[in-house]
Amino acid sequence: MMNTIGLHAVVNGKVVMASEAVVPVTRREVQYGFSVYEALRIIKGHAVHLEDHIRRLNNSCRGIGLVHSITEEDFVAWVGLLIEADDIDDATVRILLVGGQPSICYITAAPLLTYPDSYYDGGICTITYEGERFLPACKTSNLLLNYLALRKANEAGAFEALLVDRHGRILEGTRSNFFAFSKADGTLHTAADELVLEGITRDRILKAAALDGIDVVFEPPRLSDIHAGKYDELFISSTSMGAMPVRKVDDLLFSDPFDRTQAICRRIRSWELDD
Amino acid sequence: MMNTIGLHAVVNGKVVMASEAVVPVTRREVQYGFSVYEALRIIKGHAVHLEDHIRRLNNSCRGIGLVHSITEEDFVAWVGLLIEADDIDDATVRILLVGGQPSICYITAAPLLTYPDSYYDGGICTITYEGERFLPACKTSNLLLNYLALRKANEAGAFEALLVDRHGRILEGTRSNFFAFSKADGTLHTAADELVLEGITRDRILKAAALDGIDVVFEPPRLSDIHAGKYDELFISSTSMGAMPVRKVDDLLFSDPFDRTQAICRRIRSWELDD
Repeated sequence: MMNTIGLHAVVNGKVVMASEAVVPVTRREVQYGFSVYEALRIIKGHAVHLEDHIRRLNNSCRGIGLVHSITEEDFVAWVGLLIEADDIDDATVRILLVGGQPSICYITAAPLLTYPDSYYDGGICTITYEGERFLPACKTSNLLLNYLALRKANEAGAFEALLVDRHGRILEGTRSNFFAFSKADGTLHTAADELVLEGITRDRILKAAALDGIDVVFEPPRLSDIHAGKYDELFISSTSMGAMPVRKVDDLLFSDPFDRTQAICRRIRSWELDD
Repeated sequence: MMNTIGLHAVVNGKVVMASEAVVPVTRREVQYGFSVYEALRIIKGHAVHLEDHIRRLNNSCRGIGLVHSITEEDFVAWVGLLIEADDIDDATVRILLVGGQPSICYITAAPLLTYPDSYYDGGICTITYEGERFLPACKTSNLLLNYLALRKANEAGAFEALLVDRHGRILEGTRSNFFAFSKADGTLHTAADELVLEGITRDRILKAAALDGIDVVFEPPRLSDIHAGKYDELFISSTSMGAMPVRKVDDLLFSDPFDRTQAICRRIRSWELDD
């Protein structure tokens, strides 16, 4: 059967051709980036952790005061419409909600974003980039910092940029959460909830760590401590990536195996069809 | 004759119906807000300070590494196309340049943004809002802070929000530059060039101040100094506003007349048809 992922889109509950998923540039909320979004995985026709994504989308809306009248049931039904229209088996789906009167909800699909096994076996390279995301607890379209940081990473041949805040701490990557295992006691360090996005994968990583007997310390790793050798295994996480080990931070090398990261990744992937 | 402002738009040099001035939500540069813009005035069919706006647009492009192949002559011609298509006498025109391969340039028009005389005679109310614009020297679409701050101002019945940075300084408003006259010596205080947008109106205000014999001090006023009575006349400025006196900062009142601001405003308006 023909792969039709990306042929259609769902706009405010109506199936349209993807080319009609457009926003007017004269709309004030478009000009100001007053919108929120989610990206989620469809695996074997199942929208993974969909209710969590809808909950987070609504949290982002509350965070910036974006008012809409779309119910949870609407979102679920609309994602279902797109799965049906494009006959989706596996895909990455994006929900974009643009504020205004009325708000507009766009649901679009693209081929499932996956990464080579080598990224998980050997780890990925990162650079560091100074900057702090505005309203870190909300997933908004205010992403220029992330765009510029990721572009710089890619130009340097790296996969991700780790954002270093004004206090020298790494809170997150441009599209990932960040974790580091303490060399001294094996605890897992990461930023506290209120400093970063309430990660759907992040939550499951914390749960997986608990099952592996790992204690979590909610303190964001400092770049200087990373250089001082305080951590011996680092990883990033996201919906698409799962948990992905870090081989390099700028010029600093970490060597495989990344057993603890891989164990966590296997666990969280095993939960994807459990909703 | 029928007023047709806003009927057409010019997209990459082509006159289209305004309803066709849309961006696809699947475009990465749209999702990340990787775009820059300008807003300018058309007065009596003349695009005011157009070359300055084009220069600033290109400065913004350089600041974020947005590559395009549109020449100055193209921009001038395209604005001319819209003036002709909508038979524009007076209007506010917006140029939006979205990055990517290829970049897309949208030129749209709306009725000229003007304000009641009372704003200039009696001054406007402002609130203060904590926040710093990302890449202040570039006019990008990364405007969520501005949107939220201005909404809060409007909810409080105020016209503008003044942004207070982490050091307690007011660098700018959400859509304006900020100036304050020192009570002690009559000097005009404002943020240095590199901290704010290279304002087209701001430049002319500095020139007008010089002609009025006013010395300028490039130090952003601190909110605590405003409360301490260090300044006795404040104003904001923008392309649309010209120079507009401030009556209130939160609960702190300034009383008219605002002679110095009004003199500056008259001068800069008189230069609008001089290009």
